[in-house]
Amino acid sequence: MDKQSLKLGWIGTGVMGTPMFGHLLSAGFKGYVHSRTRSKAAGLTEKGAVWCDSPQQVAEASDIVFTMVGYPNDVKQVYFGENGILRSMYTGKTVVDMTTTSPQLAIEIYQAASQKGAFALDAPVSGGDIGARNGTLSIMAGGDHDVFENIKPLFELLGKKIIHTGGAGSGQHTKMANQITIASTMVGVCESLIYGFRAGLDMETMLKAIGGGAAACWTIDNLAPRITKGDFEPGFFVDHFIKDMGIALVEAERMGIVLPGLALAHQLYLSVKAKGYGKKGTQALMLALKDLSGIT
Amino acid sequence: MDKQSLKLGWIGTGVMGTPMFGHLLSAGFKGYVHSRTRSKAAGLTEKGAVWCDSPQQVAEASDIVFTMVGYPNDVKQVYFGENGILRSMYTGKTVVDMTTTSPQLAIEIYQAASQKGAFALDAPVSGGDIGARNGTLSIMAGGDHDVFENIKPLFELLGKKIIHTGGAGSGQHTKMANQITIASTMVGVCESLIYGFRAGLDMETMLKAIGGGAAACWTIDNLAPRITKGDFEPGFFVDHFIKDMGIALVEAERMGIVLPGLALAHQLYLSVKAKGYGKKGTQALMLALKDLSGIT
Repeated sequence: MDKQSLKLGWIGTGVMGTPMFGHLLSAGFKGYVHSRTRSKAAGLTEKGAVWCDSPQQVAEASDIVFTMVGYPNDVKQVYFGENGILRSMYTGKTVVDMTTTSPQLAIEIYQAASQKGAFALDAPVSGGDIGARNGTLSIMAGGDHDVFENIKPLFELLGKKIIHTGGAGSGQHTKMANQITIASTMVGVCESLIYGFRAGLDMETMLKAIGGGAAACWTIDNLAPRITKGDFEPGFFVDHFIKDMGIALVEAERMGIVLPGLALAHQLYLSVKAKGYGKKGTQALMLALKDLSGIT
Repeated sequence: MDKQSLKLGWIGTGVMGTPMFGHLLSAGFKGYVHSRTRSKAAGLTEKGAVWCDSPQQVAEASDIVFTMVGYPNDVKQVYFGENGILRSMYTGKTVVDMTTTSPQLAIEIYQAASQKGAFALDAPVSGGDIGARNGTLSIMAGGDHDVFENIKPLFELLGKKIIHTGGAGSGQHTKMANQITIASTMVGVCESLIYGFRAGLDMETMLKAIGGGAAACWTIDNLAPRITKGDFEPGFFVDHFIKDMGIALVEAERMGIVLPGLALAHQLYLSVKAKGYGKKGTQALMLALKDLSGIT
């Protein structure tokens, strides 16, 4: 990739987008940035990125535009809105949506870009803000293979595991499969902690005994110790997880499949949110489950 | 431990018990064995174990008696029945129940043994028949600490991870926590596979993408590849898993805690059994979930 001439655009400067675009700027690319709140882009403009007043302006100035925003409606607005990216999409440009969003929306963006001779990838990530800061994200990218290969050197500045998952939408579908697994795993881990706690087990000994065998999982290794310490600060927000599960449930219904475990997890997380813990980390599921059992 | 004089008893010669007692006999201990079906003890008597006609006879002949049978009622019969172990429990002897069974039953055995001056451990395992054959089980042992320390050298012939979990019943409670985690994790993994399959994802690519991150778990590494190949042969029987979940649900109700994820998994596994897959492996949950979605 020619760092002298290639112009990169970035929209969305939250806890994920800011460090991610930072890595690309640090690598020497020329950058253009927009975000809903201009002050949040200050760190990136200090690093040399040029501020743009709209997504359209970013697209106008850039060869490749990345988006990392919040909810599907934000993505729609950024791409299809009045001053949206697609107003300035021309032949040979590429858009890369890294937001976790609807697979159907990813396909719509792909089709709209294609109609203008442009390319599109849906490339959601996992690994959270720590992965974004350390450049160790997993990136699941759907879209045409040659477009993926073209963008891959940039992904490699952002993450460690970069996988082409198939055609347009498949990156989002893969992310949904990831979240579906996590949702019920979190239920299982929190329930085992409640059980062990009520049974009077020493939590540390219990986790040592059940980790490493057939119950072994990332959640036990990384979140169970936080839960037992009463640490519910976010690695990944409850609110965002609810968004992801909601998308997966809509997609599942559209595809005609029944996912009772996901539906239960979604309801339990709605209870976490209802109790005021939407801005806590996903391990705050424990708080709703404890409430269910009258444990204070 | 004095291999010349110490006499070990063993009751239960199924896929777990047979290789486990085999390891102890191979280490040079004198052994006494009983099982419901005498022919199943043939391999062990060929290895030098002496056949006994009842659990009581095993207990009469042995210093330490291990039990590895099927269901809580089998454990009750073997300990408290007409020719049960407790008829011949005397000062200084030890009983070790390695069956996964009710924590309350473990406490009853401990108390009954104590009344006769004998010692008791509840020491369920995880790791399945492969772990039993290779001597790589995880052993979660509840009971008095000095009794645990005394038996530990024997456990080390059977497993790799040997943990004293606390007082009587805590081994069983820890095993329940293990099964509670596994139950919902299996739901999550199977649902993600159904989702990915219906979304048209390449299963191998999907598993590569979601394994290793926050969705990483033993079930994805070990059972998901079998599921995608249509291999539902047992590592661990559906019937036994249903038994374990049933015990955990009874204990949870007794302790006054609510475990909706476990209750759902239990119901789904009852459906697996109802469809005739009780003797398949736990990954056969996939078959019931596919049926729910009308996927044949």
